Amino acid sequence: MLPYKNLIIIDKKDSLPVYRQISLQLISLIQEGKLPPGAVLPSTRTLAFDLQLHRKTIVAAYETLVSENWIDNLPRKSYTVSPDLPMFRPRSYNSKRVSPFAETATFDFDHFELVMPLSRSLNNNRLEINDGFPDISLLPVQAISRQFKKTLESSATSKRSGVNLDGGSSNFKTSLRSFLNQTRGIDMGEENLFTTRGAQMAIYIAASLIIKPGDKVVVSEPTYFIAEALFEKLGAELIRVPMDSDGMCTEKLEDILKKNVIKMLYIIPHHHHPTTVTMSVERRNHLMKLITAYNFAVIEDDYDYDFQFKYDPYLPLASGDHGGRIIYIGSLTKVLGSPFRLGYIIATADFLQAAARLRTLIDLRGDFIMEETISGMIANGDLARHIQKTNKLYSQRCDFLSDLVSSEMGDMIDFTKPTGGMALWLRVKPQYDLSKIIKKADLKGLTIKGSTYCIGKDAHFNAFRFGFASLNEQELTEAVHIIKTVTQNL
Amino acid sequence: MLPYKNLIIIDKKDSLPVYRQISLQLISLIQEGKLPPGAVLPSTRTLAFDLQLHRKTIVAAYETLVSENWIDNLPRKSYTVSPDLPMFRPRSYNSKRVSPFAETATFDFDHFELVMPLSRSLNNNRLEINDGFPDISLLPVQAISRQFKKTLESSATSKRSGVNLDGGSSNFKTSLRSFLNQTRGIDMGEENLFTTRGAQMAIYIAASLIIKPGDKVVVSEPTYFIAEALFEKLGAELIRVPMDSDGMCTEKLEDILKKNVIKMLYIIPHHHHPTTVTMSVERRNHLMKLITAYNFAVIEDDYDYDFQFKYDPYLPLASGDHGGRIIYIGSLTKVLGSPFRLGYIIATADFLQAAARLRTLIDLRGDFIMEETISGMIANGDLARHIQKTNKLYSQRCDFLSDLVSSEMGDMIDFTKPTGGMALWLRVKPQYDLSKIIKKADLKGLTIKGSTYCIGKDAHFNAFRFGFASLNEQELTEAVHIIKTVTQNL
Repeated sequence: MLPYKNLIIIDKKDSLPVYRQISLQLISLIQEGKLPPGAVLPSTRTLAFDLQLHRKTIVAAYETLVSENWIDNLPRKSYTVSPDLPMFRPRSYNSKRVSPFAETATFDFDHFELVMPLSRSLNNNRLEINDGFPDISLLPVQAISRQFKKTLESSATSKRSGVNLDGGSSNFKTSLRSFLNQTRGIDMGEENLFTTRGAQMAIYIAASLIIKPGDKVVVSEPTYFIAEALFEKLGAELIRVPMDSDGMCTEKLEDILKKNVIKMLYIIPHHHHPTTVTMSVERRNHLMKLITAYNFAVIEDDYDYDFQFKYDPYLPLASGDHGGRIIYIGSLTKVLGSPFRLGYIIATADFLQAAARLRTLIDLRGDFIMEETISGMIANGDLARHIQKTNKLYSQRCDFLSDLVSSEMGDMIDFTKPTGGMALWLRVKPQYDLSKIIKKADLKGLTIKGSTYCIGKDAHFNAFRFGFASLNEQELTEAVHIIKTVTQNL
Repeated sequence: MLPYKNLIIIDKKDSLPVYRQISLQLISLIQEGKLPPGAVLPSTRTLAFDLQLHRKTIVAAYETLVSENWIDNLPRKSYTVSPDLPMFRPRSYNSKRVSPFAETATFDFDHFELVMPLSRSLNNNRLEINDGFPDISLLPVQAISRQFKKTLESSATSKRSGVNLDGGSSNFKTSLRSFLNQTRGIDMGEENLFTTRGAQMAIYIAASLIIKPGDKVVVSEPTYFIAEALFEKLGAELIRVPMDSDGMCTEKLEDILKKNVIKMLYIIPHHHHPTTVTMSVERRNHLMKLITAYNFAVIEDDYDYDFQFKYDPYLPLASGDHGGRIIYIGSLTKVLGSPFRLGYIIATADFLQAAARLRTLIDLRGDFIMEETISGMIANGDLARHIQKTNKLYSQRCDFLSDLVSSEMGDMIDFTKPTGGMALWLRVKPQYDLSKIIKKADLKGLTIKGSTYCIGKDAHFNAFRFGFASLNEQELTEAVHIIKTVTQNL
């Protein structure tokens, strides 16, 4: 309830009767938006007590407002602000307001732009192609909810949880370290692991510690657009190295390293975003030599490692010998779905101490309850089972979609079937304008939301990511049908 | 499981027998830490299949390792790496390693320091005085868990949740707006509300958009140390304005404004952190005039608004007329407890558009599941009931602790009882060195973890925050007893 005692000031010496002073001040509150349409007024008894007035005075004030249509008094209901007032004038934050007290000058702030190639639908389409997100309808809802409740109960009992400023649950760190050791072969102690809200925060923190304005940073061409936008925001001068079917061209990287002092490389060796290419062994070995020879920092973004359809994954670059130069970043978001945001950084202990300090400024500490919940799921095997189960299904969906695109749209679209991950990278042939396809598909009920590279400097790619993991075969068929139809009728 | 197929390379032309090639490569994996002590090796059948060798060759390799004590083979168990190996050599991230391939040079990064006045206990004490956190043992665990499960189930069904990049659940925004309107009288539309992980992220985003290196920023003296550290990290030149029992001295602020171009003011008008002082009406009115006259940005940090023990709260500064210059920041963390991190910014729409862009780089999007869960609790009244219930209890605990400190330690400690919030600001008399009290109390089983202002530039305060909300009367009594005893015997 609003503090009416402070909001309504009665001046008994005023010539206006008290009930009218009250009703006028209530009108101001309504006009200012402090009492929005539908808001419930305090009972006459309560307000009378607060203002130390007779209840009849309040009734008189309210009844005046009822007669003026400011408020309603439905039988056996409280007094409420009328839902259909002719005017409603928000004040504090409305820059377009017209009022005698109008103040248009405000302070300066950074209006920086962020080019987001994700297309947004104006329609609320039933069917949506995302960037490569897991199918959250497969989530073990019972298991997660049970674990959540258990965590909450034990936190409530112990009274201790989350009060530490050291950035995360230690149970989660222990179980995550063991999970990462078993799956990725990265030799590390707990001092080498730092948990974050998601991979994006991990990249933000790592890049913020490394990049100073004017530093040269190498990225692939194309690369994950949000990481690229971040590096530019931090003042980096970006140097782009092309991709081919073996991953980033390390020969071209070497040429660049010979001529430039490079501060950092950002690389996604597994199922590269957006192209889905996995780096070959030869390129990996070449890159490892370059890292040591030229001494630069590397952010290895391995967001998709857990989804490899065949049993021949490569280990992360970070599992090799790199003298602590590789900062390895991963996420459980791709395992559990976008509602769950849990990421991590693996790096040297001194780097992570600086990361923890910066994280305190950004976000104090992590999501203790969620970290503990997921920790329980790692410990009891639920997480590994979920990965195994979904990996199998995603592999089938990948096969299904690849076959479908080849047979239905082979003459319009080029792609290479990935060995894992959750998306195909579809390169539409140059004679078909992808941005037009996206617009027309939207009108036919399909939103293509997956990262699209068909505008601005990325126009020549004319390509998009088709996330297959979250759609069943019927949905995949329908989506391909719509894309085919609109492409044929451009 | 590790990708043994890629990790173990057999050279049939090699003079070493194949089983020995395998065992030597497994030893390398163990030495490198990729197979840590206790790790389970693949079954002989699996490894034979992966390497396309006869199973007997694998058995021979494993038995060699058993005889050399690298691995164990307990009856009816799998082969596991021996738990007590004489040496275990982490490689990638161990800067202290000694190996023929040692690489000590790493890249440059920002090792920035952060002075954290929070004392950390070396002991695992039973009793802990925090900064002013709610008592999470009062959380409606059943209601939250039920709502969490419901949210997860409906997300899993709709498949749509959290895929938007616009930073939050729209249900949460709607219900939070209505909650804030009813309690704070801030007139705003949904375009004026932006949700974050917690108040800290809200401050980080707002300050990052406003402060450029060299800008002058006014804070109170003392002020919330993490905000201060953030502004300094962003390159601000801090100007400190003293506090008295009416809040920040706006007369002194006016003097500063006359002589300096001030970019931003950071202020906590309700239950100021750390001093718990609430700003007087006169100072508020004076400040509002200064904001318009001198046109600077204001971050109003109102972390503690929901806890006011008497029914005479002041409305936030942001509810007044300020031409959009006040950025209002709040949090549900103080309502629900530190494991739940949900904060928000109220500002003009254009400021929040920039905030959304920056947030994308920092953290992509919010915690959809938690936002939806809390949204449900706002809608069904659980949140309001929880606030009402806890507010009453905290008020009692505040009375109890205030009486106790006055009667037991009135000669050693000065304080003013606050009108709300969750902490007392205890100013220890100068003859008693607070940093010594903290160390001695720690040895007696009491960790004083609440923000302490007794080192460095804050030494003259010799004061700390005693969070009373999370301790019951017995715990409060015990804590005061320990502090009194150690102070008497310094």
